[in-house]
Amino acid sequence: MEDMLYLMNSLWVMVSAILVIFMIAGFIMLEAGSTRMKNAGHIAGKTAFTFGLASLVFWAVGFAFIFGDNANFFVGLSNFFYSGAELDLGLSSTVFFVFQLAFAGIAITIALGGFAERAKLSVYVLFTILFSAFVYPVVAHWIWGGGWLAEHGKQDFAGSTVVHLTGAMAALAATILLKPRIGRFNKDGSANAIHGHNQVFTSLGVLILWVGWFGFNAGSTVSVDAGFFGFVALNTQLAAGAGAVAALIISWIVLGKSDIPTILNGALAGLVAITASCAFVDTWAAVVIGLIAGVLVFYGAKLMEKLGIDDPIFALSVHGIPGIWGTLSTGFFATPELATVGQPGLFYGGGFTQLGVQAMGVLASGAFAFVVSFALLFVIKKLLGGLRVSEEEEIMGLDISEHGTYGYPEVFADNQSKAAGK
Amino acid sequence: MEDMLYLMNSLWVMVSAILVIFMIAGFIMLEAGSTRMKNAGHIAGKTAFTFGLASLVFWAVGFAFIFGDNANFFVGLSNFFYSGAELDLGLSSTVFFVFQLAFAGIAITIALGGFAERAKLSVYVLFTILFSAFVYPVVAHWIWGGGWLAEHGKQDFAGSTVVHLTGAMAALAATILLKPRIGRFNKDGSANAIHGHNQVFTSLGVLILWVGWFGFNAGSTVSVDAGFFGFVALNTQLAAGAGAVAALIISWIVLGKSDIPTILNGALAGLVAITASCAFVDTWAAVVIGLIAGVLVFYGAKLMEKLGIDDPIFALSVHGIPGIWGTLSTGFFATPELATVGQPGLFYGGGFTQLGVQAMGVLASGAFAFVVSFALLFVIKKLLGGLRVSEEEEIMGLDISEHGTYGYPEVFADNQSKAAGK
Amino acid sequence: MEDMLYLMNSLWVMVSAILVIFMIAGFIMLEAGSTRMKNAGHIAGKTAFTFGLASLVFWAVGFAFIFGDNANFFVGLSNFFYSGAELDLGLSSTVFFVFQLAFAGIAITIALGGFAERAKLSVYVLFTILFSAFVYPVVAHWIWGGGWLAEHGKQDFAGSTVVHLTGAMAALAATILLKPRIGRFNKDGSANAIHGHNQVFTSLGVLILWVGWFGFNAGSTVSVDAGFFGFVALNTQLAAGAGAVAALIISWIVLGKSDIPTILNGALAGLVAITASCAFVDTWAAVVIGLIAGVLVFYGAKLMEKLGIDDPIFALSVHGIPGIWGTLSTGFFATPELATVGQPGLFYGGGFTQLGVQAMGVLASGAFAFVVSFALLFVIKKLLGGLRVSEEEEIMGLDISEHGTYGYPEVFADNQSKAAGK
Repeated sequence: MEDMLYLMNSLWVMVSAILVIFMIAGFIMLEAGSTRMKNAGHIAGKTAFTFGLASLVFWAVGFAFIFGDNANFFVGLSNFFYSGAELDLGLSSTVFFVFQLAFAGIAITIALGGFAERAKLSVYVLFTILFSAFVYPVVAHWIWGGGWLAEHGKQDFAGSTVVHLTGAMAALAATILLKPRIGRFNKDGSANAIHGHNQVFTSLGVLILWVGWFGFNAGSTVSVDAGFFGFVALNTQLAAGAGAVAALIISWIVLGKSDIPTILNGALAGLVAITASCAFVDTWAAVVIGLIAGVLVFYGAKLMEKLGIDDPIFALSVHGIPGIWGTLSTGFFATPELATVGQPGLFYGGGFTQLGVQAMGVLASGAFAFVVSFALLFVIKKLLGGLRVSEEEEIMGLDISEHGTYGYPEVFADNQSKAAGK
Repeated sequence: MEDMLYLMNSLWVMVSAILVIFMIAGFIMLEAGSTRMKNAGHIAGKTAFTFGLASLVFWAVGFAFIFGDNANFFVGLSNFFYSGAELDLGLSSTVFFVFQLAFAGIAITIALGGFAERAKLSVYVLFTILFSAFVYPVVAHWIWGGGWLAEHGKQDFAGSTVVHLTGAMAALAATILLKPRIGRFNKDGSANAIHGHNQVFTSLGVLILWVGWFGFNAGSTVSVDAGFFGFVALNTQLAAGAGAVAALIISWIVLGKSDIPTILNGALAGLVAITASCAFVDTWAAVVIGLIAGVLVFYGAKLMEKLGIDDPIFALSVHGIPGIWGTLSTGFFATPELATVGQPGLFYGGGFTQLGVQAMGVLASGAFAFVVSFALLFVIKKLLGGLRVSEEEEIMGLDISEHGTYGYPEVFADNQSKAAGK
Repeated sequence: MEDMLYLMNSLWVMVSAILVIFMIAGFIMLEAGSTRMKNAGHIAGKTAFTFGLASLVFWAVGFAFIFGDNANFFVGLSNFFYSGAELDLGLSSTVFFVFQLAFAGIAITIALGGFAERAKLSVYVLFTILFSAFVYPVVAHWIWGGGWLAEHGKQDFAGSTVVHLTGAMAALAATILLKPRIGRFNKDGSANAIHGHNQVFTSLGVLILWVGWFGFNAGSTVSVDAGFFGFVALNTQLAAGAGAVAALIISWIVLGKSDIPTILNGALAGLVAITASCAFVDTWAAVVIGLIAGVLVFYGAKLMEKLGIDDPIFALSVHGIPGIWGTLSTGFFATPELATVGQPGLFYGGGFTQLGVQAMGVLASGAFAFVVSFALLFVIKKLLGGLRVSEEEEIMGLDISEHGTYGYPEVFADNQSKAAGK
C-alpha cells in the first residue's frame, strides 16, 4: 500500500514536472510575441538556452543549497552534483528533483524578462549562472527548505513569493541598471508604447503557461493524497478566468477599449496570485483573488510607466505585484479547514498573525532578491564593461548583434544582405 | 484497494482535463491561422478570454444544470458556485469538475468559430455567458446528466453530439444572423476563398487538438479500469489518421491538388466522428469511421459554400457534419462486446434500435442548440443594436476596431500610425 | 497489487505516448521554422499528414513485424491490423501499441527531414508507407523485438539507433538521391546558408520536442517500477542542457558568435545522444554525453557542408551523428549498477564487450536503413519519373506547386494573384 502511494505520488509529480518544463515554451512564445521582430530569434532562443544552463547549475549547486542537509539558517549543504540518491520524501527523489529544477528554470526565466531587447548575451549567461546558483536557492531554502521564514510559518504553496516575486525583483534590478529601451520614454517623462510584434504568439504563450500552471500549482501537493490536486487545479482555473475577466472590464471602463495583452496579462496575474494560496482558500475566494489580480495588473503596468520603469514583458506587473498580492491573500482568505499548517486568514477569525508573517516573507524575500541581484549585476557590469549592447546594435536588433542571423531572415532580407556586406 | 483506484482514476482524469484545456491553445492557433492578419490578435486573444469567462459561468451555474441533484427532465439544480463538495463519483469530484469545465470550454470555443472576423467583442462576451450557462448545460444534462435522452439510451461517449454538434449548431445560428463576411460571396452567389493567413499556425493548432483529444476521448472513460483508455486512444489515433488520408485522396481526385487546410480538416473530422463511438467499435471500424469523416468534411465545406453559408473556420464542416456522422456511427458499428450500455449496431445484428435513438439524439440536441442560440443571438442583436462591426471596421480589421492595437503591429505599422492620427 | 501495478504502468505509458505524439507538433514547428516561407504550409501540413498515414501503416503491418509472434531472425508475423488483443506485457497492450505507434511516427518524421523543400508530395506519400511498413519495423525488431541484435546484447534504451539513426540514414539516402536544393552549393563546392524563416517557430519546436522527450525516454521504462522514470528524466534533462551549453561555447569560440539554430541543435543533440543510455549512466555521465553531443552537432553540420550534402533540417547532424554517439556512449559509461541487462561500459571495467556490440548495432542498423531506403527511393524515382519538383516549382515554392495555396497567402498575395491568373 505504501509502495503504491509512493509510485502514484512519483507519477503525478513527474507529470507535473513535465508540465512546468513546458512553461518554458510558454515563455518563449509570450516573450517573443511581446517584443519586436528584430529581437525575436534572440528572445526565443536564449530562453531555451538559459533553461538548459540553469538546469546544470541547479544540478551542481542549486538543489543542494535549497534542500541539502547540514543546513544553516541560510542554505543547505549536501547533494551537490545530485547523483539520484534516495532522500525519503514519499516519492521518487529524482522526480522531486526534476520538479524543483523546473521551478528554478521558471524563476530565472521570469527574471530575464527585465533584460529584454537590450542586454548582451554574455550578461544573460553570467546572470543565469549566479541567480540559479544563489539568489533563487536562498529564497527557496528560506521558505521551502526549512529555513527561517518556514520556521516563522510563512506559507507559499506553489511559489507566488519563491518563484514569481523573486524573479520579478531580479527583473526590477536589471531593468533599473539597464535603463529603458531606446524610445520607451520621452524627455518629458511621458511614455511610448512599444508593441510586441505578434499577439498570436503571446496568446499561445499564455495558454501554454496556463496549462503548465496545473503542474505548477496542483503538482505542488507533491502527492495524490485524497485527490486534493483536483481542488488546487479548480482554484487555479477560477483565478485565471477571473483575472482575465477583471482585466477586460477595468481596461474597457478606463480606456474605452480592451487590448489583448491586457486581457492576457489578467489571466496570468490571476494565476500568479492564486499560486501562493491555491490550497488554502475556498473556490469563491479564488475568484475574488483572481479578480483583484486582474485589476492590479492593469494599474501595475500604468504605475511602472509613471515611475519611468521599462518593464518590457511585464515581469513586474504580472509576476511582481500579483505575486505580492497572492502571498498576502493567504493571510486574508485561508480557511480553518484548509490552512492545516499555517493560521486561518483575517476573514476567518485568524487575526493578523498569518497576514503579518506573509508580509514579512514578502519583504525579506523581495529585498534579498532585489539587493543581491542588483549587486551581482553591478559586478557583471564592471566585469563586462557594460550590461547593454551599443545604441547602434539595439537599433539593428539583438538577433544580428548577438547571434549574427535574423530570426526572420526573409523579412529583414535587405538588412541582412547589407549586414553581410553583400 | 478501493482507495487506490479512486486515486488512480483521479490522476488519469486530472491529466485528461489538462489535455482538454490545452485544446484551447489548439483552437487559438487553428482559428488564428485560418483567418486574416488584421484579425489575428483578436481571434487569438478572445479565445483565451472566452475560455476564462466560460469557466466562471460553468462554475456558477453550468455544472449545477448538468449534474446537479433535484434534476427535472430539463436540468439539474444543485452545486451552484461549486465549492468542491465530494459527490461520490469514484474519483475526486473536483477533478471531475475541472474535466467537465474543460468540455464546456471547448463547446463555446467551437460555437464562436461561426462569429469569426465580423462579430463585435461585446457579442462574444454576452453569448459566451448565455451559451455556457444554458445551451450547453441543457444538452449535456439530457445526454450525460441522466436526462431524457440518456433514459432513452442515447450513447455519446465523449461528445460528438454534446460538444461538437451543439457548438456547431450555435455557430450555424450565428453565421446565419451575422451574414457572410465582406467579399465571401459574389452577387451571383459564387464564392471567393478567403484564405487563412498562416498554415503553420493551423497545422500546429491541429496537432495540439489531436494531442488534446486523447484527454477528450480516452479521459472520458473517467476511470483507469482495465487500462481500457488505451483502446479508446488507439481508436482515436486511427480515425484521425484515416480522416487525413481520406481528405487528401478525395481532394486530390476531385481538385487535382490537395490543399493543406483540407488535409488538416480531414484529421479533425476523423477525431470529431470517433468521439461518440471510440469506446464501442473495433479498430477496423474506427478506420472506416475516420475515412468517411474525411470525405464528409470535404464535401461538407463545398455544401456550405453552395448554400451561401460562410463557415469561416469550418465549425460546421468539421464539427457539425462529422459530429452527426460520429453519433450515428455508433448505431452502425457498436459491437456486442463493447456496447455494454447501449445496443449493438446495425452491422452487428442490433437492428435499427440504437441507430434510431442516435438519430433522435442528433435531431433533438441539434434543434435545441440551434433554436435557442438563434433566439439568444436575436435578443443580443436587439440589445446591442446589431451583432456585427461596421463595414469600415470589418475592412480595417477587428484587432483595431475591438482592441485598439494590431496583433501584428509591425506589419501594419503604417495603418497603425494613421489610426493613431500620427 | 499486481492489478494496481498493471494499471499504473498503463497510465504512465499512456501519458508518455501522448507526449511522444506531441513531438510531431514539435517537428512541425522546427521544420517549418528551419525552412523558407514559400514552403512553410507544405512542410507543416505534410508532417501532420504523414504522421496520420504512418499510423495506419503501423497498425496494418508495422507493429506485427516488430513485436509479432512466429518471429524469424528478420521480423515478427502476428497481430496484423491490430485489434487490441491483450499480449501479456505487464501493462495495457493497447497503451503499449499507441506508445510504439508514436515512435514509428517520430522515425518517419526524422527521415522526411532529408526531403525538405524539393521532394514531390507523392514521394512523401509513397516513402512514408514503405518506410513505416518495412524499414523502421525491421530495425526495431532486431533491437527491441527480440531479433538478432537483441540476442547479441545490443542496448538502446529509447532509440538512439532504432529511431534517430534509422530516420537519419533514410534522410541521408533521400538527400543524396534528391541532390541539394537550388542555391545551396556554388559551382566551386562552397556552401551558401539557406536560413530558416522563423527562429521563434524553431525555438518552440525544440521546446516541444524537449518536453515530449520525457515521454520518449522516461516512458521507455514501460513501467513505474521504483519510480525509476524520474532518474531517466533527470539524465534526459541534464544532457539537453549540456548539449545547448556546449554548442553555444563551441560556436562562440569558433565563429565569434553563437547563432540560435546552433544552440537549439545542441539541446536536441544532447537529447538524441542520451536516448540510448539514459537508463544506464550516472548523472555526471549524462552531462558529459550531452556536452560531447553539443560539440558533435556543430562540427557535424560543418562536415555535411564540406561533403556537399544538403541537410536542410539537420536530420544528419542532429539525429544521425549524435544518434551514433549516444549508442556508443552506453559502451563507455554504463555503470555496473544500472546496466542490469547489458555489460558495464569501458570506463567501469566492462572492457570492450558492450562497446563492440553497440558499434555492430550502429553499423548493421545504419547500413540496413540506408541501403533499403536508397533502393526504395530509387524505385519510387523510376515509378514517378523523378523524386523532385521542377526547378520552376522549387523556386515558386512547394506550397503552390504541391497544394495550390500559399501557407502565407497575405505575404505572397501578388504571386498568388498571378498564379491564379488574376
